[in-house]
Amino acid sequence: MFGEFELIERFLKPAPAALDRGVALGGGDDAALLVPQAGFELTVSVDTSNADVHFPSEAPARAIGHRALAVALSDLAAMGARSRWCLMALTHPSDAFEDEAAAARWFEDFGGGFHALCERHQTALAGGDVTRGPLGISVTVMGEVPKGQALTRAGARPGDLIAVTGALGGGAGGLTLWQRGERDLAHPLLTRYLLPEPRLEAGVALRGIASAALDISDGLLADLGHLRQASNVGAELDIGALPAAQGLIEALGEYDAQAAMLGGGDDYELLVTLAPGELEKARQALVELGIALTVIGRCCQAPGVHGVPAEAAQGWQHFHRGQS
Amino acid sequence: MFGEFELIERFLKPAPAALDRGVALGGGDDAALLVPQAGFELTVSVDTSNADVHFPSEAPARAIGHRALAVALSDLAAMGARSRWCLMALTHPSDAFEDEAAAARWFEDFGGGFHALCERHQTALAGGDVTRGPLGISVTVMGEVPKGQALTRAGARPGDLIAVTGALGGGAGGLTLWQRGERDLAHPLLTRYLLPEPRLEAGVALRGIASAALDISDGLLADLGHLRQASNVGAELDIGALPAAQGLIEALGEYDAQAAMLGGGDDYELLVTLAPGELEKARQALVELGIALTVIGRCCQAPGVHGVPAEAAQGWQHFHRGQS
Repeated sequence: MFGEFELIERFLKPAPAALDRGVALGGGDDAALLVPQAGFELTVSVDTSNADVHFPSEAPARAIGHRALAVALSDLAAMGARSRWCLMALTHPSDAFEDEAAAARWFEDFGGGFHALCERHQTALAGGDVTRGPLGISVTVMGEVPKGQALTRAGARPGDLIAVTGALGGGAGGLTLWQRGERDLAHPLLTRYLLPEPRLEAGVALRGIASAALDISDGLLADLGHLRQASNVGAELDIGALPAAQGLIEALGEYDAQAAMLGGGDDYELLVTLAPGELEKARQALVELGIALTVIGRCCQAPGVHGVPAEAAQGWQHFHRGQS
Repeated sequence: MFGEFELIERFLKPAPAALDRGVALGGGDDAALLVPQAGFELTVSVDTSNADVHFPSEAPARAIGHRALAVALSDLAAMGARSRWCLMALTHPSDAFEDEAAAARWFEDFGGGFHALCERHQTALAGGDVTRGPLGISVTVMGEVPKGQALTRAGARPGDLIAVTGALGGGAGGLTLWQRGERDLAHPLLTRYLLPEPRLEAGVALRGIASAALDISDGLLADLGHLRQASNVGAELDIGALPAAQGLIEALGEYDAQAAMLGGGDDYELLVTLAPGELEKARQALVELGIALTVIGRCCQAPGVHGVPAEAAQGWQHFHRGQS
């Protein structure tokens, strides 16, 4: 079908505009040359999305391209970094398509979804690798944050509020709908599951305001656990305050909706802590971006999570896919 | 078996010494924070190694870990960059091992091979991702090169000499031996195939001397093609001058040895061009590193490759694995 070089040339080449963005030398040589800004720390992360582990292989190619980048960018968002560059390592089966036209359509859509999200976040695709094998995409993202200003998981203090951007449960809710056969990407839950929007602007806006941050990829309770451990605090949750993704309760019912919000992964919202006196400032900053910030609890000294009924703590495991 | 967090904690954590190396914040947060040097360009590349496409899945785990990093570092070598940081995206099957002890041995060896090469090149493992799926490793490498001093593929001029570091054909020769059942990694060809040494010091030493450079991963003729295209030159090869890897001719015979040198991939030597007046300086610089530099031809204006018998040009395809 397509060789590595043809694929890259036709579908995965950076848009010309990207070449202005701190890229001294782009694809086509052994490595790319990038120009970091003085006074910033380079913020780097890699995320792999494998077919039928992290996304359905039958998902539209545009969504697969978008999502593979989105989940990686979400990690930069959680650090308060601006995204600058990315690398795409694409593994795909050589025999997956009926003919060359079908392959061209798939790669065009896949590249289109990836590039559109790059554009939206001023991120230059600086290089990559295309190999044969089962469908999977590893995306390396590189961003920048002013020295010493990164948001980490370690800064929460007892008394800090716990808040989330946007809404919860959309990832797990969308997966459930997909498994039931829903295929309309315009359904709000499917949009949340297959076309998540990394909260990069929110992360930047919360620099200097939030005391700790991470993104919700493993599920609220699991990710809150990472934050509690890094910050050495406990948490009192008000589960009645959890903001449900649009359409979640209708689709799953109250009980499963709560489980999806507490335990479902793939929401890619930011989970942050902040001193109570910073709340209005934070809300104001996010209102300007059209993003809600909902207080869902408070950090405390007593270790562990409080306020979650044992029933809910068990129920969420239903949604936890045990990805490793 | 092992969960993601346990795997990372036990086998894939950076060595403590690595934390001094320009890593402001290492693994365990959403992203790593790195501190680039002023006046340098960031040199980045990603390479994916998939089981039974790029390496035999039955290869020793230590070699798999070493090799996945080595092939990525080779791209930094080809740019004349020093390596500083890397990210590892490891996909592995959850059911590949008989029991937890067997899994622990594999991951310990794999991590050991990877970490040892990191140490040898002062490269800090700054983060990664571990996912379920068929065995594959995507390694992102990040290095630095003084601004404007990177070696590219585009600087060769007619009249420049064409030279290679080390010896050729070891990658293809080693693969052939492996397929014949040889399993002794101390065999020089198997060493070349499964434990290649990226030529990072040579790349740095050739800065300001070589007019163009790339690494030989696709095979000499294919990679020379990339250089010719980027530099817009032709090439006259002296195939009698090609330096054969140790043991190659004994193992494969004259004819196949020549094919392996011309067309076999996975040698990870540097292919460079340089003005004739720079040859002694280049040789002297590499002698100090214990690396030979052999002149194998000369750039010319006439497009194409000259001096390669059609027979040889066809024979090499036997060794070309058509990886994409």
